[in-house]
Amino acid sequence: MLVHTIKEVRDIVNSWKKQGLTVGLVPTMGALHNGHKSLFEKSAKKCDKTVISVFVNPIQFCPGEDFEKYPRTLDADCKIAESAGVDLVFAPNPKEMYPNVQMMTSDFLTYVNPPFFYVNKLCGKSRVGHFDGVCTVVNKLLNIVQPNFAFFGEKDYQQLVILKKMVNDLNISVEIIGCPLVREESGLAISSRNKYLSESEKQDALALSKILFNIKNCFQKGVTDIAALKETAYEFLNEHHTLEYLDFRDAETLEDKNIADENTRVFIALKVGSVRLIDNISLK
Amino acid sequence: MLVHTIKEVRDIVNSWKKQGLTVGLVPTMGALHNGHKSLFEKSAKKCDKTVISVFVNPIQFCPGEDFEKYPRTLDADCKIAESAGVDLVFAPNPKEMYPNVQMMTSDFLTYVNPPFFYVNKLCGKSRVGHFDGVCTVVNKLLNIVQPNFAFFGEKDYQQLVILKKMVNDLNISVEIIGCPLVREESGLAISSRNKYLSESEKQDALALSKILFNIKNCFQKGVTDIAALKETAYEFLNEHHTLEYLDFRDAETLEDKNIADENTRVFIALKVGSVRLIDNISLK
Repeated sequence: MLVHTIKEVRDIVNSWKKQGLTVGLVPTMGALHNGHKSLFEKSAKKCDKTVISVFVNPIQFCPGEDFEKYPRTLDADCKIAESAGVDLVFAPNPKEMYPNVQMMTSDFLTYVNPPFFYVNKLCGKSRVGHFDGVCTVVNKLLNIVQPNFAFFGEKDYQQLVILKKMVNDLNISVEIIGCPLVREESGLAISSRNKYLSESEKQDALALSKILFNIKNCFQKGVTDIAALKETAYEFLNEHHTLEYLDFRDAETLEDKNIADENTRVFIALKVGSVRLIDNISLK
Repeated sequence: MLVHTIKEVRDIVNSWKKQGLTVGLVPTMGALHNGHKSLFEKSAKKCDKTVISVFVNPIQFCPGEDFEKYPRTLDADCKIAESAGVDLVFAPNPKEMYPNVQMMTSDFLTYVNPPFFYVNKLCGKSRVGHFDGVCTVVNKLLNIVQPNFAFFGEKDYQQLVILKKMVNDLNISVEIIGCPLVREESGLAISSRNKYLSESEKQDALALSKILFNIKNCFQKGVTDIAALKETAYEFLNEHHTLEYLDFRDAETLEDKNIADENTRVFIALKVGSVRLIDNISLK
């Protein structure tokens, strides 16, 4: 079932709750792929009812980013959702989420701002304000749907950590469930932004997963020195690549690691031509 | 009933909700007086069950303010609450609300930040960060209690407008109810901070209500020029007074008024000796 208004979502979810059913929420920006599908299936398995939102959230895009051209494919999205056991698709228009679409800055809108410590690193460094927009819209969606569980992919790992922190700090009655990222057979992490890649760029994009797999391999062979592990990345980079970061951080707190260990997660952001891609891996 | 933990509140409120009962919440910082009592009675009348919180919220005090010496009178508070029909008093210690009490800044804690437009005026100008702390703790309390209604006094009128805006912007499932401020027979608006006043300061403190009543009186006689209305304040001020602001604003949006009308609210903040007092009045 597809609805567009907050009132419809609330009415439907309330009727479920009165029956004592549990509800899972998967917030998305649409352009659904197998990564999203794995989240839907996880929710459908764990919860009696699954709601997904499809909303390209304007306030999480920074100036110069791809808000306008971000792929919008609602018909196809609904088919994927249905095939994965989703009960309700909530696809609001921007006015439904931000009634005053001319006034979406922090001058005129209440924002939920995650802590600076979690934001001033990895993607937060280049995408200024991004996680404020993410926390604000997810907070709104949690208030609208009031799910028992909400599912997020580990593809956006920093986002997952920040949202868990938000739920904890603000005592929100929901359990956030992180789900493993999904890769194509080639190793490329599935992302809606992969649609921007040409065939040759797709080949170049394999550098991200190759670098991460190789680092994990070296770590498992006993290398724990982070400088040495970083060094191994360069053999996979060519003139089409611009490396934004390659960071080794604690998987819980995102603190910088001095030495790689089993609690370390490795994060990479890389531009292939003009397309910015991210990936990450646990060393466990 | 008095409880100190979030878990206890949730268990009790959940048992009420399962019975289909409605719940009202009145957040307070304790040091309860007849102003609070009027809120409790309003909630008890409107809702099946009334919860109040008693919590001196550290993150809404600015450096140099009275956090340490703010009056704490829990035993007396519980008696007042009971006499006013309150069903549950939630009095958490700071660690229950902020488990990491050393890390309460926006570096380490998720904050709910109201829009700058509503904050950069009236009390927000001198109390930098105050409303961020208020919105964050009220957001937490709303998530903990999940009430149908929450009651706030018009004494803190800017706070009321900001909290309504927060609830609206973040789609929180609660109705915020503003309640008229309560005055002593002398006209003095009741406030926990009145306890700081000596007898002679209490006399000086009457200037606030006298100024507001006089302005309303002049308006009702036909004066709408704001400069002229402001001018009338000076006859009530003496050397013990430091006027912080006397502002004429739209009652809904807090926008500055050029000419006084029925939608105008008049706001005053005045120091009497070292005690900062506020008051406000509708011209309707």
